[in-house]
Amino acid sequence: MRVILAAGTTETALIDGISAAGAAPELMKHTPSADAEILVYGEPTAAPVTPVSPTGCPTPAAITRAVREVVGFELAVVDAGLSQPTAAPTIGLGVDPGTDIREETAVADAAAIFDRAHEYGSSLPDDELLLGETVPGGTTTALGVLTALGEPASVSSSLPKNPIERKRRVVDESLAASDLAAGDCANDPLAAIEAVGDPVQPTVLGIVAGALDAGIDVTLAGGTQMVAAAALVRHAGIDAPLTIATTSFVRDEQGTALAAACERLDCELIVTDPGFDERTHVAMERYCAGEAKEGVVMGGALSLVPDRRMAAVCDRVETVCERLGIDADGGEE
Amino acid sequence: MRVILAAGTTETALIDGISAAGAAPELMKHTPSADAEILVYGEPTAAPVTPVSPTGCPTPAAITRAVREVVGFELAVVDAGLSQPTAAPTIGLGVDPGTDIREETAVADAAAIFDRAHEYGSSLPDDELLLGETVPGGTTTALGVLTALGEPASVSSSLPKNPIERKRRVVDESLAASDLAAGDCANDPLAAIEAVGDPVQPTVLGIVAGALDAGIDVTLAGGTQMVAAAALVRHAGIDAPLTIATTSFVRDEQGTALAAACERLDCELIVTDPGFDERTHVAMERYCAGEAKEGVVMGGALSLVPDRRMAAVCDRVETVCERLGIDADGGEE
Repeated sequence: MRVILAAGTTETALIDGISAAGAAPELMKHTPSADAEILVYGEPTAAPVTPVSPTGCPTPAAITRAVREVVGFELAVVDAGLSQPTAAPTIGLGVDPGTDIREETAVADAAAIFDRAHEYGSSLPDDELLLGETVPGGTTTALGVLTALGEPASVSSSLPKNPIERKRRVVDESLAASDLAAGDCANDPLAAIEAVGDPVQPTVLGIVAGALDAGIDVTLAGGTQMVAAAALVRHAGIDAPLTIATTSFVRDEQGTALAAACERLDCELIVTDPGFDERTHVAMERYCAGEAKEGVVMGGALSLVPDRRMAAVCDRVETVCERLGIDADGGEE
Repeated sequence: MRVILAAGTTETALIDGISAAGAAPELMKHTPSADAEILVYGEPTAAPVTPVSPTGCPTPAAITRAVREVVGFELAVVDAGLSQPTAAPTIGLGVDPGTDIREETAVADAAAIFDRAHEYGSSLPDDELLLGETVPGGTTTALGVLTALGEPASVSSSLPKNPIERKRRVVDESLAASDLAAGDCANDPLAAIEAVGDPVQPTVLGIVAGALDAGIDVTLAGGTQMVAAAALVRHAGIDAPLTIATTSFVRDEQGTALAAACERLDCELIVTDPGFDERTHVAMERYCAGEAKEGVVMGGALSLVPDRRMAAVCDRVETVCERLGIDADGGEE
């Protein structure tokens, strides 16, 4: 089993009020680089930021790292359009940062990215992959491609109050800028990505398609962004088995929509509740309050933890937070 | 503890008869990319070659990978001048492939590489690093810098019969091309590298210097190339404790020269004998016959293996070789 993190950026994240992945917009571009370093080294090393919300909610990378420290797993980070340097080792597939989806073209070379990612995915010797993402603004681009594909579009948010209407207006404006209406890209996932997606999407789609072609079992680790990834896979005409593994925080927000989406897309759904409600540490309290919810492979990583080890993961979350300078009582030290 | 592999290339490897790191010169440029993939994935995935000598001796990467599968360790690959793509995740420090040392300049930007590598090394949160290399032609460039520094120069070879006189002639010619005599670069390691070194050297030197500055314990994993790295460190005026961990195959070839070099450079020496002489598999027989000897962190990785687990490592070497298509009786399947 190998965990793959596709890490990238899109200028879409700079649109006011759509993402909590990093406190200030000008620092958000560092979030995926920092997330990769947290998974690899346990803390940001070269990245100049630690992604923590103003209320003390750490990036999901902190949770995934805690799982890694407890149960261990092989990790590979794919550069799916990083705009800032990272000290984490990355697989280079020649992916550039994405453009604001309100421009005519959001991902200029989606087909070429898909091809290279497919080659990478099909080359892997693993039996099983767990694939996640980190891309600020990613739920908006997820809403973008779901709408373009004509799929019922419900996406989550890293903010406690989901600015979903704001996202819908951005997507409507973006589709218009690409001269498209909802559903116009059905069965053409690369067209949807090119118009209103982000560079992580063709990377994930390509790796999934390549891995499935090679007979590798694939689990998409994430919430509504991974529902969008699954929709892209199905609209590419791929009907191999696919699993989505996410957190109870996404399920609690999405209600029945999540299970319905998985059923429609013929995906098995795994939801893991890490039991954060039994803890008083601010980081875990913020997740229970609906912040962050998922991302950076969090739900998939939690699905690897045997029940009897979950308390050890929660303990380790506290250790990782301490390392990241997050005080147990809230705020940064 | 983290293992770091600095993987790079130099056109020096193309000089006739100096390296066994890959059967054919035109394929040798792929060796470091393939070695990195073997450590990360267990076999080459994107690289079009498996580095195996005509007699069936696999790259030391196969041994290091076997150790990793038995005892496990965190691994980071640094791109220290790869000329060919690799599917392994790599840390990018902006290092270009090296030029033939018979040109006036062998590594154009040694000082800038050192600075970036130093920043990387000093940023690491680890307590302990094990640092190795893969660079075809690397013993010749090691001889180059040792000679330029004025150090007693004895280097090993991946060939059973060390073409040391050939290497000495190449180094003499190369020093002359840079308008230098032996010893001219004493206390100026970057000048030595720039004139007659390879891009892996300033990368390793920088990471070591940065890590030592940050209070991290450093072990250089390798044979005479790591003696050269230690000499570069000492000529940079760094007197922190340093360990060299290598294989019994290097010690057996080098006689007392290895221990003498370590004493002169104030390095602790760890030599590990993996007990290959008790096995009949062609891969291990070739190591006992003096092929390959060391490289790709092999000696350092073996030093991590408790005695009682060494037989399991030898068993695993057979498994890895089978995966690489190396028949136990010799030759490729």
